[in-house]
Amino acid sequence: MANLGGGEAKNRQVIFRDFVSGFPQESDFIVSSSSIRLKLPEASNGVLLKTLYLSCDPFMRFLMESRPPSTSYSPGSLLFGFGVARVLESALSNFKEGDLLWGMLKWEEYSVVEEPEKLFKIQHTDVPLSYYTGILGMPGITAYFGFHEICSPKKGEYVFVSAASGAVGQLVGQLAKLMGCYVVGSAGSREKIELLKNKFGFDEVFNYKEERDLNAALKRCFPEGIDVYFENVGGKTLDAVLLNMRPHGRIAVCGMISQYNLGQSEGVHNLLRLMTQRVRMEGFRAPDYFHRYAEFLEAMLPYIREGKITYVEDTVHGLESGPAALIGLFSGRNVGKQVVAISTE
Amino acid sequence: MANLGGGEAKNRQVIFRDFVSGFPQESDFIVSSSSIRLKLPEASNGVLLKTLYLSCDPFMRFLMESRPPSTSYSPGSLLFGFGVARVLESALSNFKEGDLLWGMLKWEEYSVVEEPEKLFKIQHTDVPLSYYTGILGMPGITAYFGFHEICSPKKGEYVFVSAASGAVGQLVGQLAKLMGCYVVGSAGSREKIELLKNKFGFDEVFNYKEERDLNAALKRCFPEGIDVYFENVGGKTLDAVLLNMRPHGRIAVCGMISQYNLGQSEGVHNLLRLMTQRVRMEGFRAPDYFHRYAEFLEAMLPYIREGKITYVEDTVHGLESGPAALIGLFSGRNVGKQVVAISTE
Repeated sequence: MANLGGGEAKNRQVIFRDFVSGFPQESDFIVSSSSIRLKLPEASNGVLLKTLYLSCDPFMRFLMESRPPSTSYSPGSLLFGFGVARVLESALSNFKEGDLLWGMLKWEEYSVVEEPEKLFKIQHTDVPLSYYTGILGMPGITAYFGFHEICSPKKGEYVFVSAASGAVGQLVGQLAKLMGCYVVGSAGSREKIELLKNKFGFDEVFNYKEERDLNAALKRCFPEGIDVYFENVGGKTLDAVLLNMRPHGRIAVCGMISQYNLGQSEGVHNLLRLMTQRVRMEGFRAPDYFHRYAEFLEAMLPYIREGKITYVEDTVHGLESGPAALIGLFSGRNVGKQVVAISTE
Repeated sequence: MANLGGGEAKNRQVIFRDFVSGFPQESDFIVSSSSIRLKLPEASNGVLLKTLYLSCDPFMRFLMESRPPSTSYSPGSLLFGFGVARVLESALSNFKEGDLLWGMLKWEEYSVVEEPEKLFKIQHTDVPLSYYTGILGMPGITAYFGFHEICSPKKGEYVFVSAASGAVGQLVGQLAKLMGCYVVGSAGSREKIELLKNKFGFDEVFNYKEERDLNAALKRCFPEGIDVYFENVGGKTLDAVLLNMRPHGRIAVCGMISQYNLGQSEGVHNLLRLMTQRVRMEGFRAPDYFHRYAEFLEAMLPYIREGKITYVEDTVHGLESGPAALIGLFSGRNVGKQVVAISTE
C-alpha cells in the first residue's frame, strides 16, 4: 500500500524492450520495479499521479515499429497509452489533490506529469472510472464521431461493423441501432457473437472464422447491400465488403487490425467498386475530435445513465498483467474493451 | 455521299462479337455494312440521325464483360458509346432537321433514335463539334465535377493526375492550374510528357514507364506530399500515391484503367494510410452530374473561347477505324482524347 505521506513506495513500470516486427510477444516488454518518493520533486511544476486504469488499444502496435517520421516507443523507455489517474499532489493552482484525469499516461503505478493540461479532467464520477479508458475516452470518441461524422448515417440504412465486440465496435453497433439502422456485426468467437446478439442488440451477426466465403456471408446478411461500413479490420473483410456496397455508400476507416502484424499488408483488389458505386471511404482519428469532448459527453452520458448503451470490459488486474493483455488484442483474446486495473483506491 | 432525299445509303456498323476477358482485340468487333433508307420509318416517333463523331472511352471496357447485374454489350449487337450526331428527320416537334445532339449513340453511320430526349442538344457551334465527345461532353463533365466537387481543391495545394494526357487528365490538370494549384502529371510516353509540360502547363511530369520506383518519383515531385490525387489508373500508382498523401488529402476515383483488362486486379497494400493521414477517397461517375450541364457549360465555354484551356484530340477517320482506336486506349496508344470522325458534313 502506498504511503501517501511522502514516503517511499514501490513503482512498477512496463518498459518497451525494442522495436517489434510481426506479432508482439510478452518478451517485448519488461516489467520492472523501482522505488518512488511520493512527493513532487522540488523543481516540478506539474502533478504527481497515481495510475488507476491503463488501456490496451490497437493503435499502440504502430508505436512499436520504427517508421520515421511517425512517433514510436523508444527502446528501453516506458510504454505509454491512455489511462485514468488521480492527483496525489499538485504544484499547479488548477489541479488539486484528488482530481481525476484521463489521457496519455506512462505505464507505471505513479507518475510525475509536467503538462497535466494535456489530460482531461473527469467531472462525472457516477459511472465507473474505467469507462474513461473506453466508452467515455478515446474509443468512445472514435465510435461517436467516426460513426456520426464520417459515416453520415441515415435512419433505416444497412450498417456493417467488423471487430464488433471490441471497444469501438460495440459502441458503433449500438449508436447505429439508436439511430434506427439495421446493424450486422462480425467477430471471431462464439462468446463474442453471443454478446453482439444478446447484449448489444445487433440485428444479425457472424463469426468470420467460421465463414468460408466472406462475400457470401455478407450477401446473406445484407441481401440489399451495405450503406455504411465501419472498418476495423482491413484485408479480406474489406475486399468482401467492397463487393457489397450500395450506391453512395460510406466506409469509415477506423483501423485495420488484421494487418498490423503483417510485414506486407494483404492486397485489396476491389477498389474499383468505389467508382462504380460512388462510395466514399474516409480515414479518421479520434484526436481530431478531442476538442469536441464536451459535446460528446453530453450525448453519451445520458445513454449510459438511461441504460440505452451497454458497455462490456475485459479487465485484468495489476500492471504485471498488462503486456499479456496488450498483445492479446492482436489474437482477439479480449472480449470487450481491454482494461488493466492498476489500483481502485 | 448520302442521298438525303430519302433514298438508300450504305450504313456501316460496328458489332460487338462476344464477351471479352483480358485485353480486347480488333477481332472482338465486326465492321459490317448494310443499306438504310434515309427516311424515318412510318411507325417511328423519334428522329433519324447522321453520326458525326464517336467517342472511345475507357468505361466501354466494362460493358464488354458479362457481370450481372451490371449492363453490358449484347454479343451480336451494335456497340454503343458517346457521340455527336445531326438530325436528318424528326417526327417530334421539339427536334428538327439540322439539330445537333450529343449523347449515347450506336456505332453506326445512321441511326433511328426513339428517345432523343435522352440526348443533349448542342447550342454552341463556335467550337469544334468533336468537343462534345470530350471537353464539352462526358469527359469534360467528369473532369470538372470530379475535380471541383470530389477533390475539394484549394489554391496552392499539391495535385497529382495520372493518365494526365488523356481526355479527362489533361482537363483536370488545367483546371487545377487555373485554380492556382501545383500540378504534377504522369503519362506513358515521351510524346505525352511533352504535351503535359509544353501544352497543358503542368508544373512537373514523369513517364511512369521510365521510373523504377513510383514512390521515389512521387517523393521527387512532391517533397511536401500530395493534397489531391485524381485517380485514373489504380494499382501500383495508387499504392505509391497512398504513401505520399498529406493529412486530410483527397483522392477522387475516376477510373483505374491499368486494372480493366486483368482477370484479378492488383492488390493495393497501403490503404491504412487513409486512416493515419485522414484521407478521403471517393468514387464518382459523370452521369450523376449530367443535370448540372448548363452550369458546366457556363464555366467551360469561356475557358475554351479565351484560350485558357487547351484541348488535344487524337482523331481517326471512318467507322472502320473505330475498333482499333477503341482498343488502343488500353495500351495507351492515343495521345489526347480518342475520337472517331465519321462524317464532317
